[in-house]
Amino acid sequence: MKRILSFLSSMALVLPAISAEPLVPYPEEYRGWHHVKTMVIDEGHPLYEAFGGIHHIYANPKAVAGYQSGTFPDGAVIVFDLLEAIPADNAVTEGTRKVVGVMHRDARNYAATGGWGFEGFGGGDRANRVVGGNAASACFACHEPQKDHDYVFSRLRD
Amino acid sequence: MKRILSFLSSMALVLPAISAEPLVPYPEEYRGWHHVKTMVIDEGHPLYEAFGGIHHIYANPKAVAGYQSGTFPDGAVIVFDLLEAIPADNAVTEGTRKVVGVMHRDARNYAATGGWGFEGFGGGDRANRVVGGNAASACFACHEPQKDHDYVFSRLRD
Repeated sequence: MKRILSFLSSMALVLPAISAEPLVPYPEEYRGWHHVKTMVIDEGHPLYEAFGGIHHIYANPKAVAGYQSGTFPDGAVIVFDLLEAIPADNAVTEGTRKVVGVMHRDARNYAATGGWGFEGFGGGDRANRVVGGNAASACFACHEPQKDHDYVFSRLRD
Repeated sequence: MKRILSFLSSMALVLPAISAEPLVPYPEEYRGWHHVKTMVIDEGHPLYEAFGGIHHIYANPKAVAGYQSGTFPDGAVIVFDLLEAIPADNAVTEGTRKVVGVMHRDARNYAATGGWGFEGFGGGDRANRVVGGNAASACFACHEPQKDHDYVFSRLRD
């Protein structure tokens, strides 16, 4: 009995680590993925503080299949690549990277946030995680109304 | 002698067809190619009439290798994909396609224009060729000063 209690006690120490959501991986080589669409967000836009600049959406092959079918399989990854937008001489060009936002599909591990792991890599630096444990409030709260599109805002275009 | 003259005469009819530059092929599946960069050209910009809107540059694998090495091999293709830019509510979104511009590397066949065939497909319609035989004046004249970059304006970025 003592041995069982000791075992359960050690499991209690281990279980939280097992049940914690795994870190969202940095999306290696995403710049070679399918370019879905682009948008510029200017000063005065309600999302300017968080997402001001020019952003591109990239999808890995599983995510492209997800856009097409309406349901994203595990392993689908979508990147929101935000760069500074530099307006000058009646043109807007791209500046330095502000953040690499990631949605990583893993229905079991990220069940609490619609089956998506969310992360942001500040400045594109894989060591600078700006979302961490705050995905539910910092990301999923805004994505939740997109439930009919599997929580994804963007749509595939020609 | 009469037969030789007849032969030369028939060759004269045939030769212009042989020496004419081949049509630049429509860049099939280019939307899945590497996204190089993006720029918005607004009203007031000197290129607005021709290229106003938001454009994306895409490169096939041989063109990516060309950007990296500085010399583009035959078969390298670069696409200039121009969409309407729709400014509204402090944001700029993408509209309908205005033109699919193409640079197609073939050093022998397009020797007169830096080894690049140029074409534009109006509205993205592969039947609507808007450059045709005017590549030298309509395209190459502006690209020629980029000789040190093999006549390409864009650069690969992270």
